[in-house]
Amino acid sequence: MVQPRRIELHGRPIGAGAYPSIITPLVGRDAAALRAELAFIVPRRPDMLEWRIDHFARLADTDAVIAMAREIRAAAAGVPLLLTRRSVAEGGQAIALAEADVVALYARMCHERCVDLIDCELSQARAQVAHLRAASASCGVAMILSFHDFRATPGADEIVARFVHAEQLGADIAKVAVMPAGPSDVLALLGATQRASQAVGIPLIGISMGGIGVASRVLGWQFGSAATFAAGLGDSAPGQLAIEELRAVLAVVQRAGAAR
Amino acid sequence: MVQPRRIELHGRPIGAGAYPSIITPLVGRDAAALRAELAFIVPRRPDMLEWRIDHFARLADTDAVIAMAREIRAAAAGVPLLLTRRSVAEGGQAIALAEADVVALYARMCHERCVDLIDCELSQARAQVAHLRAASASCGVAMILSFHDFRATPGADEIVARFVHAEQLGADIAKVAVMPAGPSDVLALLGATQRASQAVGIPLIGISMGGIGVASRVLGWQFGSAATFAAGLGDSAPGQLAIEELRAVLAVVQRAGAAR
Repeated sequence: MVQPRRIELHGRPIGAGAYPSIITPLVGRDAAALRAELAFIVPRRPDMLEWRIDHFARLADTDAVIAMAREIRAAAAGVPLLLTRRSVAEGGQAIALAEADVVALYARMCHERCVDLIDCELSQARAQVAHLRAASASCGVAMILSFHDFRATPGADEIVARFVHAEQLGADIAKVAVMPAGPSDVLALLGATQRASQAVGIPLIGISMGGIGVASRVLGWQFGSAATFAAGLGDSAPGQLAIEELRAVLAVVQRAGAAR
Repeated sequence: MVQPRRIELHGRPIGAGAYPSIITPLVGRDAAALRAELAFIVPRRPDMLEWRIDHFARLADTDAVIAMAREIRAAAAGVPLLLTRRSVAEGGQAIALAEADVVALYARMCHERCVDLIDCELSQARAQVAHLRAASASCGVAMILSFHDFRATPGADEIVARFVHAEQLGADIAKVAVMPAGPSDVLALLGATQRASQAVGIPLIGISMGGIGVASRVLGWQFGSAATFAAGLGDSAPGQLAIEELRAVLAVVQRAGAAR
C-alpha cells in the first residue's frame, strides 16, 4: 500500500503515525464559540487542530489572541495546534490587520510558543515568509507553506511547481488546495500531488475542494497527501466531511487496500 | 453532481435509479454454495447479480446450468441476473468447454430467457460476438462487452478505444477492468473512463482493481462509471469491498458531494 510521507513534530509523527493525518478547523468568532467547537472536536481526536484566526473577532488584540491560543492548547489535550490566518484572496475572512501586523502576530505567537505550527501563504512577500521561517524555526514551531485557489485548478505542472516552491522556501509541509471545474481537475490535482511527492522531501497536502473533489479528501493519501481536513462543528472549505464520517470511510477503504 | 449514464433494462433504470449500480458476483461451485450466496446477498439488495458460471462445476451440463439459472432468478426476487463466463486469459477459472460450446450455451440461455444480461469479452471472435449480439437482442437480453487485464493498465488512449470498440460492436454496456501498477494507473483509468463517457452513448463501467484501485470502486461514478462490483459471500476480483461497506462509503461521499 502506498503511504504518504508523514507529518512530524520534533521528529515524531503526529497522531500516533496513523495516516492520513486528520486536521479539523476551529472557526469560532469568539471564545464561547471556540469552546463549543473544542468540546465537540477534542473528544473525536483529530490529529491536528487548525485555529483559523481570520474568523476570530478580537484578532487585533494580541494579548487576547495569545490567551485564546493558550486556552485552546490546554483544551486540546496534546493535539497539535496549527495557527492559520487565511487571506481573503485565498478564501479567508476579511480582517482589520495589515499584513505587517499579521506577520508580527505570527512571530509573537511563535515566541510565546503557544502554537505548534503556523500556516503561511506562498503568495506572501518573500521577506515575510523568510522572517517567519526564521522565527518559527528558532522556536521549534513548524511551518506550512500553502497555496489556495477557490476559483479554479491550475495545470498539473503549476501545482507541482507550488509544492516544489514551498520546499525551496524552507517549509516543513507544503499544501495546495484548489477548486475543480470538473472530474479531470480532480485527477490533475491527485496526479500532481503524486508527482510532487516524488520530487520533494517534505510531507505534502493536496486537496481538490467541493463535492467533486471528495476523492482527494478520502483517497488523497494514496497519491502522497499526508493529511486531510475534516469538519468539526463547522467547516472551513467546501467538501469537508464530518470527522467521524471521514474516519469510517478511511477505515473501509484502507481495509480494502490492505487486503491484497 | 456528476452522474453517469445509467444502466437500463427494457427502458427502465435498474436499482430504482440509484447510482452507481452495485453488482455482486455469485462464485459458488455448486447449487448448495450458490444457495448460500443468494441467502446472504439477496437481502442486501444489490442492483444486479453476476453469475460467474466459470466457477460452476456442472457447466458442461446445459440443462443443469439452465435449471440453476432459473433457481437463481427466482431467488433473486427481481434483481437482474447477468450471465458471465470469464475466460482464463481475463482472470476467470479454467473450464472444460470449448469456445463454441460457451457461445452455444450463452445463446441457449438467451433463448430460454433465464438471464437478463450476458457478458461477452471484446477478445472473443468477432463472429461469436455478432452471433451473441443478435441472439441476445432477439430475446430482450442486454449485452455487456468487457475487457480485463489482471496484469497491467493499458494507456489511457487504449482504454478509451476499448470502450468505443464495445459500442461499435453493439454492446448495451461497455466494461473495462484493469490492474494498476501504481497510483498514476488509477488516474489513467478514471480519466479514460471520463473521456469515454463523453465519446460513447452507452453506460460504461471502469474499474481499477486491487487495493490501490479502490478510488475507482467508490468514486468511479464521478468519472462516468455506471456500476461498481461489491463482494457478497465471495469476491470475484481483488479490491472488491463488501456490499454493505461500499454502500456506507457511497452514502457518505455522495452526501458530501451533494452538500455544495
